[in-house]
Amino acid sequence: MSIDRRSLLGSSAAVIGAGMLTTAQAQTPAPPPPAPPAPITQILARYITGARFEDLPANVRKEGTRTFLNWMGVAVGGSHHETVNNAVAALSPFSGKPEANLMGRGDRLDILNAALVNGISSHIFDYDDTHLKTIIHPAGPVASAILALSQHRPVSGRDFLNALVLGVETECRIGNAVYPSHYDMGWHITGSCGVFGGAAAAGKLLGLTEQQMAWALGLAASQPVGLKIQFGTMTKSFHAGRAAQNGLTAALLAAQNYTADVTALEGKDGWAQDLSRAVNWAEVTEGLGTRYEAALNTYKPFACGIVGHPGIDAAIQLRGENKLTADQIDTVTLHANPLVLSLMGKTEPQIGLEGKFSIYHCVAVGLIYGAAGERQFQDAIVKDPVVVGLRRKITVNTDAAVPTQKSDLTIRLKTGKVLTRHIENAIGSLEKPLSDAALEAKFADLADGILPRTQAQKLMQLCWGLEQASDAGAIAQAGAV
Amino acid sequence: MSIDRRSLLGSSAAVIGAGMLTTAQAQTPAPPPPAPPAPITQILARYITGARFEDLPANVRKEGTRTFLNWMGVAVGGSHHETVNNAVAALSPFSGKPEANLMGRGDRLDILNAALVNGISSHIFDYDDTHLKTIIHPAGPVASAILALSQHRPVSGRDFLNALVLGVETECRIGNAVYPSHYDMGWHITGSCGVFGGAAAAGKLLGLTEQQMAWALGLAASQPVGLKIQFGTMTKSFHAGRAAQNGLTAALLAAQNYTADVTALEGKDGWAQDLSRAVNWAEVTEGLGTRYEAALNTYKPFACGIVGHPGIDAAIQLRGENKLTADQIDTVTLHANPLVLSLMGKTEPQIGLEGKFSIYHCVAVGLIYGAAGERQFQDAIVKDPVVVGLRRKITVNTDAAVPTQKSDLTIRLKTGKVLTRHIENAIGSLEKPLSDAALEAKFADLADGILPRTQAQKLMQLCWGLEQASDAGAIAQAGAV
Repeated sequence: MSIDRRSLLGSSAAVIGAGMLTTAQAQTPAPPPPAPPAPITQILARYITGARFEDLPANVRKEGTRTFLNWMGVAVGGSHHETVNNAVAALSPFSGKPEANLMGRGDRLDILNAALVNGISSHIFDYDDTHLKTIIHPAGPVASAILALSQHRPVSGRDFLNALVLGVETECRIGNAVYPSHYDMGWHITGSCGVFGGAAAAGKLLGLTEQQMAWALGLAASQPVGLKIQFGTMTKSFHAGRAAQNGLTAALLAAQNYTADVTALEGKDGWAQDLSRAVNWAEVTEGLGTRYEAALNTYKPFACGIVGHPGIDAAIQLRGENKLTADQIDTVTLHANPLVLSLMGKTEPQIGLEGKFSIYHCVAVGLIYGAAGERQFQDAIVKDPVVVGLRRKITVNTDAAVPTQKSDLTIRLKTGKVLTRHIENAIGSLEKPLSDAALEAKFADLADGILPRTQAQKLMQLCWGLEQASDAGAIAQAGAV
Repeated sequence: MSIDRRSLLGSSAAVIGAGMLTTAQAQTPAPPPPAPPAPITQILARYITGARFEDLPANVRKEGTRTFLNWMGVAVGGSHHETVNNAVAALSPFSGKPEANLMGRGDRLDILNAALVNGISSHIFDYDDTHLKTIIHPAGPVASAILALSQHRPVSGRDFLNALVLGVETECRIGNAVYPSHYDMGWHITGSCGVFGGAAAAGKLLGLTEQQMAWALGLAASQPVGLKIQFGTMTKSFHAGRAAQNGLTAALLAAQNYTADVTALEGKDGWAQDLSRAVNWAEVTEGLGTRYEAALNTYKPFACGIVGHPGIDAAIQLRGENKLTADQIDTVTLHANPLVLSLMGKTEPQIGLEGKFSIYHCVAVGLIYGAAGERQFQDAIVKDPVVVGLRRKITVNTDAAVPTQKSDLTIRLKTGKVLTRHIENAIGSLEKPLSDAALEAKFADLADGILPRTQAQKLMQLCWGLEQASDAGAIAQAGAV
C-alpha cells in the first residue's frame, strides 16, 4: 500500500503545537491551537441528526451493505478465539439483561458488553474492512455498537444502514483530518477515531437531538481507545470493541442529557489538540452529504498483511489458469517492494499466526489451495509437508522501485515452462474491489465450522437484504448459534 | 498554588518527539523515543503485586484512611446531583447483578457501573482530594473501583487500604513522570493517569500475578479518559468515574489472561509517547516502597478553587476570634495574587456554581457562616440579601508579588476598628493539613440531608476503622440509604 496522504492535506491544514519547547527543563504550556475554521463538532452533529436514508446514493447504500456483510463474516469467524473466550469469561459475571447476541456464539450479554465482545471478535483476524486513506477498520466500532442496540430498541434495516454509513463517515472523516500525524504519534486509529463512529451511529438510532448528538461526540472525544504498541496482543482487538462500547455509552448518556463540551473535537484542550500535531478540518466538513468516505471501504480477500496481497493474487491466478499442483513446480520468484520482506519475511513459520507474517507461506498456500483465508493460516496447514516443501522453493527479490500495490510472480515448472504474472492492483484494492461473490466465499469460509452451512447462507441473505429488513435486530439472532 | 515542577524534573528527563516536523505538508513519522531507563510497566507490576500492608509506614496508613474518609464524604454529598441522576438513568437499564451500592443512594448496580457512578459522584463538587504536585484527584479512580469490587469479592480492611495506597501511588507517580507536559497538552490528568490507579488497586485485590498485573496496566494504558475542555460540563466528573471503571475492567480482563503489551507505558507507540511530550521515569521508579506520594494527599476545606482558600481561611479566623457579624462590617480588602481574580473574579454571582468562581462570595460566606462548604454555594445562599450586601463591601487588590498560597485580609468595622490577618499557608495545604476534626465536619456537612445524622456518624467511624474492618464491602452498605 503506498497511500500518500501529504497531497491530500490542503494548504489550510492547521498545525497544532508548532514551535513549542520540547525539553523537559524548559517546559512551557503549548500555545493555543489556531482557530478552527468552523464549529466542527456541531457541524457533524447537525449533519448526523439531519441525514436521511433517502439521501444516500445507491453506491453508498451498496457499499454500506457490503461493509455490514463483511463485518458479520469476520465477527462470526473470530467468535471462538481465545481472546473472545477470555473477554466473555471476565465480563459476563457482570453483564446485565442478556438482550444482545454474540455473533457465532450461543451466549448473550447486555448490549454494552455485546458491543464490546462482537467488536473484539470482528477484529481478531485482522481480516476486517479497511478505509485505506487512514487504515481505519470502520465497521468494528460502528456495526458492533448498533447491532447490539437494535436488539434493545427495534429499528428498520433502512435506518440501520443509514446509521452505519453515518458512523463510518464520521470516524473516517475525523481520521482523514488528523492522519498521518495522529497515527504517527502512536494511536491505533481504529479505536481512537472509531469511538466517534460508534457514538454517531448509536446516537442516530436513539433519535438524539442536535444538541444531544454534540454531547455524544463530546463524550466520545473524552474516551479514545488504543495504542499501537498493543499490536500482537489481545488488546489490539479490544480497541475495536471498546470503541464500539464507548461510543454506545456516549450516545446513551447524551440521550439522558448528560452534557459535554460541544466543541470537544476542535476546541482548546480538546481531542485534536491532545491527540494530533496537525489537523485539516476541511477533511471533515467538505462535501459532507455529497462525497462519501463510506463508499471507499475495502475488504481483504486474504487473511494477512495487505503488502502480501499482490503476490498471493498472482499465485492464485496462475494456479487457476494452469491447473497447477505443487508437485509440478520447480521454483517460484516474487519481485516486490522491500516492505514485503520487512513486514512478512518469516521463512520458516511454525504456527498459524507466524504464517501471516511469511510471504513464503502466503504464496505457497495461494498456489496449493487457490486461497489465503483464515483457514490457510491454521497451525496444521503451516506445518503441512507439502506447504513447507513449496515454501522453500520460493525466492523473493525486493526492489524499491516496485510500488507496494504491485508485484511480479515467475513460476518455473519442472517441465522447463515459465509462467509469469504482473499484478498492477491486487484483488481487494479500491481499483479492483472484491466482488460480491468473493465476499460471499470469504464469509462462508469464515463461518464454516461455526454456523451450519444453511444458517450461514441464510445469514448472508439477511445481510444482503438489510435495506428491506423490518427489524435489523433479527439479523443478530440469525448470526448466533 | 505555585507548584513549580520544572525543578523536580531531573536532567535525565527524556524528551519525546523532539525535533519532529510539525507542518502538515512535510509530515514525517515521529522519531522513536529515547530508550527508557528501565522496564517501567513491569517494575510497577512487580512492586504492586509484592507490596504488603505490613510494609506501609504508619503515616501512610493514616493518610490512606483520611483519603478514604474524604472520598466517602464527597461521594455521598454529590450523590443526588443531576449529573449522577442522568448517568444512572442512562446506564441502569443495562446494569448486571446489583451487587454494589451507590453511595448516598438507595439503588444498586453491578460493580462496573457502580464504580463509574460513585466516581462521578465523588468529583462533582470539585471538593475531593488533591495531589498538589500533579493536580490529580487520587481517590475517585481508585476508591470507586475497589469499593465496588469489595462487594463482589470480600476483602479485609487492611487489604483494601493497602490496595488504595498502591493505586494512589501508581497514578500519582505516573502523573509525576509526565507532569506538566501531559497536562499542558490538554489531558485531564485525573482520568488519564487515574485509570492506572484503578487497575493497580483492583488488580491487587484480585490477586493478579506479576504478569497479569503488567497486562492490567497495559489494558489501562489503552483506555485513558479525559480532556480538559470538558471542565464546566458533566463530562468532567465522568472522567473520574470512567477511569475507575476502565481500571477495574482492565484488572478483570487481565485476571482471565487477556493479554496486553507489557511495556505499554514506556515503549515505542506506548502511553507516554502518545500522551506526553516529556517524561521522567525516575519519578516512577525512585524510592518505590519507601517514599510515598500517597502521604502527600490533601483535602479541600472549602468547596471552591484552591486559589481562593487563603482569603477564606483569613475570613473564618477573624470571624471566630472577633465573633463578627455581617452588620458590624464596613469594608473588607483582600490583598492577593492576580490569579485569584482571573479565576474567581465574578462580582455578582447569580447561582451556586457561579459563587464558586466569585472570591467575593467566598470571603462573604466565610465571614457570615464561618464556612465555605458545599452548603454555602447553594443558590439560595448566593441570592441571600445579607450575603449580597457583604459581597459588595469587599475589594480585591492584586499583586503579582504575593504567592498564590498566601494572602492578607483587612476588615474595617463600623466602629473604626481594623482587623488584619496574614495567611502564610491556607488550611488544607500540605503545610497546614486539614485536621481529622475538620475532615469530620466536612463529611458531616456533605452528608447532611442525604444520610440520617446517626448513619453519617456511624459511616465516619467505619471509615476511620478501615484498618480493623473484617469486610470492607460492609462500609459500602453503610454509605447507602
